[in-house]
Amino acid sequence: MDTIGIAMVGYGMIGRVHSLGYRDLPLYYPGQFPAPRLAAVCTSRPETAQAAAQEAGFAAWTSDLNALLALPGVDVVDCCVPNDQHKEVILAAIAAGKHVYCEKPLAMNGAEAREIARAAQVGGVHFGMTFNYRFIPAIMRARQLIESGALGQIYSYHAVFYHSGYQDPNRPLVWRMRRERSGGGALVDLGSHIIDLMRYLLGEYEMVRCVTQTYVKERPVRAGSNQLAPVTVDDAAWLQARHATGAFGTLEVSRYATGTLDDLRFEIFGRHGALRFDLMDPNWLYYYDASRPAEPLGGERGWARLETVQSYPGAASPPARTVLGWTRTHAENQAAFLRAVAAGQEPVPGLIDGLRTQFVLDAAYASAESGEWVTVETE
Amino acid sequence: MDTIGIAMVGYGMIGRVHSLGYRDLPLYYPGQFPAPRLAAVCTSRPETAQAAAQEAGFAAWTSDLNALLALPGVDVVDCCVPNDQHKEVILAAIAAGKHVYCEKPLAMNGAEAREIARAAQVGGVHFGMTFNYRFIPAIMRARQLIESGALGQIYSYHAVFYHSGYQDPNRPLVWRMRRERSGGGALVDLGSHIIDLMRYLLGEYEMVRCVTQTYVKERPVRAGSNQLAPVTVDDAAWLQARHATGAFGTLEVSRYATGTLDDLRFEIFGRHGALRFDLMDPNWLYYYDASRPAEPLGGERGWARLETVQSYPGAASPPARTVLGWTRTHAENQAAFLRAVAAGQEPVPGLIDGLRTQFVLDAAYASAESGEWVTVETE
Amino acid sequence: MDTIGIAMVGYGMIGRVHSLGYRDLPLYYPGQFPAPRLAAVCTSRPETAQAAAQEAGFAAWTSDLNALLALPGVDVVDCCVPNDQHKEVILAAIAAGKHVYCEKPLAMNGAEAREIARAAQVGGVHFGMTFNYRFIPAIMRARQLIESGALGQIYSYHAVFYHSGYQDPNRPLVWRMRRERSGGGALVDLGSHIIDLMRYLLGEYEMVRCVTQTYVKERPVRAGSNQLAPVTVDDAAWLQARHATGAFGTLEVSRYATGTLDDLRFEIFGRHGALRFDLMDPNWLYYYDASRPAEPLGGERGWARLETVQSYPGAASPPARTVLGWTRTHAENQAAFLRAVAAGQEPVPGLIDGLRTQFVLDAAYASAESGEWVTVETE
Amino acid sequence: MDTIGIAMVGYGMIGRVHSLGYRDLPLYYPGQFPAPRLAAVCTSRPETAQAAAQEAGFAAWTSDLNALLALPGVDVVDCCVPNDQHKEVILAAIAAGKHVYCEKPLAMNGAEAREIARAAQVGGVHFGMTFNYRFIPAIMRARQLIESGALGQIYSYHAVFYHSGYQDPNRPLVWRMRRERSGGGALVDLGSHIIDLMRYLLGEYEMVRCVTQTYVKERPVRAGSNQLAPVTVDDAAWLQARHATGAFGTLEVSRYATGTLDDLRFEIFGRHGALRFDLMDPNWLYYYDASRPAEPLGGERGWARLETVQSYPGAASPPARTVLGWTRTHAENQAAFLRAVAAGQEPVPGLIDGLRTQFVLDAAYASAESGEWVTVETE
Repeated sequence: MDTIGIAMVGYGMIGRVHSLGYRDLPLYYPGQFPAPRLAAVCTSRPETAQAAAQEAGFAAWTSDLNALLALPGVDVVDCCVPNDQHKEVILAAIAAGKHVYCEKPLAMNGAEAREIARAAQVGGVHFGMTFNYRFIPAIMRARQLIESGALGQIYSYHAVFYHSGYQDPNRPLVWRMRRERSGGGALVDLGSHIIDLMRYLLGEYEMVRCVTQTYVKERPVRAGSNQLAPVTVDDAAWLQARHATGAFGTLEVSRYATGTLDDLRFEIFGRHGALRFDLMDPNWLYYYDASRPAEPLGGERGWARLETVQSYPGAASPPARTVLGWTRTHAENQAAFLRAVAAGQEPVPGLIDGLRTQFVLDAAYASAESGEWVTVETE
Repeated sequence: MDTIGIAMVGYGMIGRVHSLGYRDLPLYYPGQFPAPRLAAVCTSRPETAQAAAQEAGFAAWTSDLNALLALPGVDVVDCCVPNDQHKEVILAAIAAGKHVYCEKPLAMNGAEAREIARAAQVGGVHFGMTFNYRFIPAIMRARQLIESGALGQIYSYHAVFYHSGYQDPNRPLVWRMRRERSGGGALVDLGSHIIDLMRYLLGEYEMVRCVTQTYVKERPVRAGSNQLAPVTVDDAAWLQARHATGAFGTLEVSRYATGTLDDLRFEIFGRHGALRFDLMDPNWLYYYDASRPAEPLGGERGWARLETVQSYPGAASPPARTVLGWTRTHAENQAAFLRAVAAGQEPVPGLIDGLRTQFVLDAAYASAESGEWVTVETE
Repeated sequence: MDTIGIAMVGYGMIGRVHSLGYRDLPLYYPGQFPAPRLAAVCTSRPETAQAAAQEAGFAAWTSDLNALLALPGVDVVDCCVPNDQHKEVILAAIAAGKHVYCEKPLAMNGAEAREIARAAQVGGVHFGMTFNYRFIPAIMRARQLIESGALGQIYSYHAVFYHSGYQDPNRPLVWRMRRERSGGGALVDLGSHIIDLMRYLLGEYEMVRCVTQTYVKERPVRAGSNQLAPVTVDDAAWLQARHATGAFGTLEVSRYATGTLDDLRFEIFGRHGALRFDLMDPNWLYYYDASRPAEPLGGERGWARLETVQSYPGAASPPARTVLGWTRTHAENQAAFLRAVAAGQEPVPGLIDGLRTQFVLDAAYASAESGEWVTVETE
Repeated sequence: MDTIGIAMVGYGMIGRVHSLGYRDLPLYYPGQFPAPRLAAVCTSRPETAQAAAQEAGFAAWTSDLNALLALPGVDVVDCCVPNDQHKEVILAAIAAGKHVYCEKPLAMNGAEAREIARAAQVGGVHFGMTFNYRFIPAIMRARQLIESGALGQIYSYHAVFYHSGYQDPNRPLVWRMRRERSGGGALVDLGSHIIDLMRYLLGEYEMVRCVTQTYVKERPVRAGSNQLAPVTVDDAAWLQARHATGAFGTLEVSRYATGTLDDLRFEIFGRHGALRFDLMDPNWLYYYDASRPAEPLGGERGWARLETVQSYPGAASPPARTVLGWTRTHAENQAAFLRAVAAGQEPVPGLIDGLRTQFVLDAAYASAESGEWVTVETE
C-alpha cells in the first residue's frame, strides 16, 4: 500500500479540518507511513462537491454516495456528515468494503451504533473514530502517568466541556438543536468528548445519573423570523458517574457557560498524585506528585506544569518547543488511523470507543428522564 | 458602649485565630468602632485556660462556663468549641443575656439550630456567625456585581472546597471523623462554607441531591495503635442543587483531593456575565462581561482579573495594594459583628445564615441516604 | 494572476514550515486570493532537492539556483537558506525579476541589507519579510490598541526572547555559533524578532546600549569529538533602548534561560494602559485599562485577558474559539505577502522592516564592544 | 530577658505595620521567645504620640527622643521615621545603649550608613534591618535551593519592583519626591528591596550600570495648588549588574508601571535549574529542575509551583495551608530580630545588609550620572 485513497462524505467545517490533516501529514511525518491521497469528495449537491474538490485538492467529486464508492482508488470513507446520516453512509461504505474514519459521535444512539458495529465486524473493515482530544500531547502524557500507576487508586474527578454563544434567544434553530437530526444536544456534541476522554484515562463506566436543562425552549426557525420552533435538545447537562474501578466523577457540559470558548478541562484526584488539564491552555499537563517530600521549607511538593508542548515523538514539524494548535490534534488522530490501516491493525480510537460512548449517552438521557441511576450497557 | 468585652469559650486553633482578630482590629480601623476587650477565656481545664489567657491577653480565665458568664464586663460569648458542644454553650450564653459570636457550623443539625435560633429570639441577644469567606474582598465584589444585575439571569455554577491530607489510612481517628462529635464530615466542615457562600451570592436553595463517600472506613484510634475504629462521616460529597431563582449548581467537597491545600473555588455563569474565584489566589475576582464587544480583532471581551486586593474600604492597615492573608478575613467578620452589636443591629452573617446552612446540610445527608431530591426546609 | 508560483531555496526546518503554510492557505481562506503554487525547490544537493519536492509537493527540483530562476511559472523566490547565503540568493532572484519572500534576518549585517534593499528598489520587485510573530492575533490586537491611543504616552517596556538548551558544553558547534555563518548569536536569532516587534508596536529606535555574553567559549567540532573550536557569537544579550517617542525599553535574549522553551514575552507600560504578552500562552492579549474606575470595592480595574484566540477575520478554518499553533502565524505572514503581491502593493513586513532591524543589530553589537550608547542608523 | 521593651520612633504607615507584628507574634509563636513589650512611642508632636500609644497599646508616649531613650524598660529602638531622620535617631539610640531595628533604607547614602555602622560597632548594640521580603516562605525556599546547589552556576536574572499611581501629574509633591528628604526615588524606595533580595540570594555585587528617568519634572506643592516645585528624584530606574560570581542581572523599578500594584518579581536562570517569584502571587515558589528527564512523552520537566504557603516552621498560627498576607512578613522579620537579640547574636538581616544595599544605591546613582559602569564599594 503506497498511498491510502480517501473519499470524504460531507464537507462542512469538520470536513475542511480533516482535509487540512491529510494535506499536512506528509510534512509532519515525512516518509513515515503511506501518504493519504485525496481521492474524492461527496456532498449533497454537485456544486458544493465541486467547490470542495477544488479547494481541498480532491481528485474527483460527486453528489452521489454510490458513485463515490464505485470510484477506483478509494480505500477509506471519511464520514463528515451530520449525525442522522452517519448510519446510512457508514453502512454503505462497509458494504462496499471500504475502511471507515468517522467523526464523533458514531451514530444517533446505541441501537444504531450497535448495528454499525456488527456490520463492520461482518464486513471486516477497519474502523477509526475521531476523538481528537486523545491526541493532545498533554492527554497522551496523562494516560502514560495513570497507566504507570503514578496516581494510584483514583478517588474522583471533575470534567467539563463548556461552550458559550447560545445565550441570545434570537439565535435561530439549527440542526444541532433538533433531536431528530443530532441525537441530542450539548451532551452529545460536547459530552461525547469528555465521556470518551474519561473512559480513555480511567476505564469503563458502570452507571450514571444525569440532569439536563434547556434554557431557551423555542427559537426562530431562521434568522429574523417571527416563527418559533421548539428546541428539542439539552443546552446543558450534569452527570454523576461511577466507574468500574470505583472512581466517582462529575461531568458537566453547557452551551451557556458565559466566558468560555472551548473550555474542556478536568481534574483527577488519586491516592498518590493528581492531574489537571485545560484545553484553553493545552500545551501543558499539570501533575502533582504526592510522593515527593512535603515538610515545610524543604518541601518539593507542588503542581508541575509538564512540558508536553514539545511536539509529537518522531514528528519533523512543527519544531519542538513551539505551541501546537487545535487542528494538529485532528491530524494526529488521522495519522494513528492511517498507520493502523496500513499495518492491518484495529485503529484506536475505533468502533468500541464509538460504541461505548454512545451507551453512556443513552444511559445519561435515560437517567435525565427517570431521575434514577442507570447502568451503562457494555455491548 | 466604649469597649465590647469578649469571653471566649474554647481556645484551639480557631480560638487563636479569633484572638488575633480582636487584637488586630484596633490597628486596622483605629477609632472606628468600640474596641474589643479580651475579658476572659474558658477552656475545659484550668491549666489550658490559664495558658490561653496568658498567650492571647485575656484578663481572666476559668474552666467553668457558668463562672465565665458571671464575670463582670462580658458582653459577647465567642463560641469556639467543637460542634457537639455548641448548643450547650450557646444556650447558656443566651440565658445569661450575652450576645453570641459562633464559629460555623451553628450546631450539629437543623433541629439543634432551630432550638438555638428560638432561644436567641426569645433572649433578644445579637447573634453573629463566622462565615469568614464572605469577607474576602473578591467575594464582597462578587456580591456587588450580582446584586447590580451585571450577570443577569444565573444559569448555573460549580463550587468546590477541596482539602487533602486524609489519604494516609494510618492517620488516626479524630473527633472530625466521628458523626456524634462533628455532625458530619467533609460536607459539614468544608461544605458549610460553600453552601453559605452560594446562598449569599445566589439566594435560597430549593432542593438538593447528594452522594457521599467514605474512602477509609476504619482508622487507628490513636497514632500507632493497632486498634481500629470506624469512620462515621463522609470523606467527600457531591451535591446538585436547585435554587429558588432556577439556578442550578454543583458543589463538591473532599478531604482526599490530592494536590489541593485550601482550594475553595467557584465559577458562576450568567446571561450577561460570569465570575470565577479561587481561594488559593484570593486577591482577585475574575469577571467576564459579556456585554462588551466581541468581534474579531477589535474585541474587548475577556476575563478581567479585578483588583480586589486593595484592602478594605476605610482600613488604615495593611496598606492598599499589598496582598491579604486568610486571618484577615476572620478579623473582618468579627469587625462586622462588633459594628452591629455596637449599633444594636442584627449581625450579618447571623442566625438565619447559620440556620439555613444547617437545613441544606440536613437535606443533603437525607438525599445521600434516599438517593432522591430533597426539599430544603426554610424555618 | 490566478496562482502565484513559489520557488523555494533551502528546505531545512524553516522551509518545511513555509511549505506547510502554502499548502494550508487555500483551506484557511478559500477563494480569497491567488493560491500559492509550489513551482520548484532548490537545495544544495540533487538528492535533498528531490526529497523535498516529493515531500512537500513541489512540481520541480534542482540544486542549481540559476536553473531554478530560469524555470517557467516562478513568480516568487522564498529564501530559506542560512544567513550567510541570503545576499547571493536574493540578489540573483531580484536580477531575475522575481519577487522575494525572505526568512529573517534579511542579511548578515546592515551593509549587506542596504545592498539588497537598493537592488530590490532598482529591480522593482516586491519584497516580503518573515516576521511571523506580527501575525499572532494577540500582537495584531496590541498594535490596534496602541494605534488607537488606548495606552497614551508609552513610558517603558520590557521584552524578552528566551530559549534554553545550550547549557550542555558538549553540545557541538553548529553554524549558528559561528559569526561568519550567522552574523551573530542569540541577538540575531532571537533578538531580531523582538526588535522588530517593539518597532512594529512602538516605532523607531533612536539609540541602544548592549551587553553580550558567551558562556561556553569552545565546543566540540562535532558530537563526541575531542577537538574544540571557538564559539564566536553571543549566547545572551541585554539591550537598553530609547525610541524616537521617548519610550525606554529593555530587551533580553538568551539561549541559556533554563526552564524556557519559546518564551517571547513583553510588558508595555503607558500613561493610560498597559499590555502583556507571552508566546507560551499565545491565545490571549493581556490588557490593563487605567481609565476604568478604581475605587475599592466598586472598582473595575484589572488585567483583562482579551480573547484574541478567535481565529483570523475572514478565515474559514480553524473554527473560531479553538487555539492556534505556531505554524499558523507563518501561514498568515505568507498570506499577507501573497495578498500584497497579487495586489501589486508593498508587502508588510517588507524591506524596510528587514533593514531597520539589521541596523538595530549593528548598533547593539557596536555598543557591546564600545560600552557606549550607539545611535541607530535609519537608511 | 523575659520581655523585650520596644520604643518606636515614628508612627506612620510603617510604624502601624511594625506594631501589628509585635502584637501578633505571641500568637504566632506562643512561648517560643521573649515577647515584645510595647514600652513607648515617640512622634514629632505630643498629640500624635498619644494617639499612637492609645491605638497600638504603647505604655508611654512622648515627642522628645531623649525622653524616650531615658525611659526605663526600653531595650530596642524601632526606627520608623523618614529617611533623612534615620541617622539622628539611630545615633542617639546607639549612644543610649539601645539595640536598633531599622526600617529600610538604613540611611540617606553610603557615607551616612558607614557612620552608623561604625557607631553601632563601637556601641556594641545589636542592629536589625527590615528587609521583610526575605521572610516570604517562597523566598526562604529559594535561598535554600540556591544554597543547596540545585541551580548550579547562575547565568543571569531579571528582577523588578513595579508600582503605579504616579501617572497623574496633579498628584502633589511629597517627601518621597525630594532627594534631600528621601535620598532618592524609586531606586531607593523600591530598588533597595530587590537589590537586597538579589544579594541575599546570589551574593555580592561587583559593579552596576544604571539609567534613571523622571517623567513628571514638576508637581503642585500641595493638592490643588498652582504652585509647582521640582521633583528631584527618579521615577524609574534600570540597572545592569555583575555579581562577584559572574552572574549578570537586570533590575528595574518604576512608579509608573501601569497595571501593577506591588509587583516584585524575579526570574533566575542557573545551569541546572531556574526560579520564578511574583509578590502578587506570593504563596508559591516556581522551580524548574533541569536535571529531570526531558524526552518527549515521558518527560517530567516543567515548572513546579512549590507549596511554600504552608506557614512558617514552628508557627502555631495561621493554620498551615492558608494563604499569608504581606504584614506577616514584617512580623517574621521582627521575630528573627527579637530571637537574635534574646540570644545575644547578630540579627540577620542586619547592619552589613543595610550598608551593602546603600553602596549599590550609591553606585547606581553615580552611574546614572556618568553613564559608565561603577564598582560597588564593600566597606
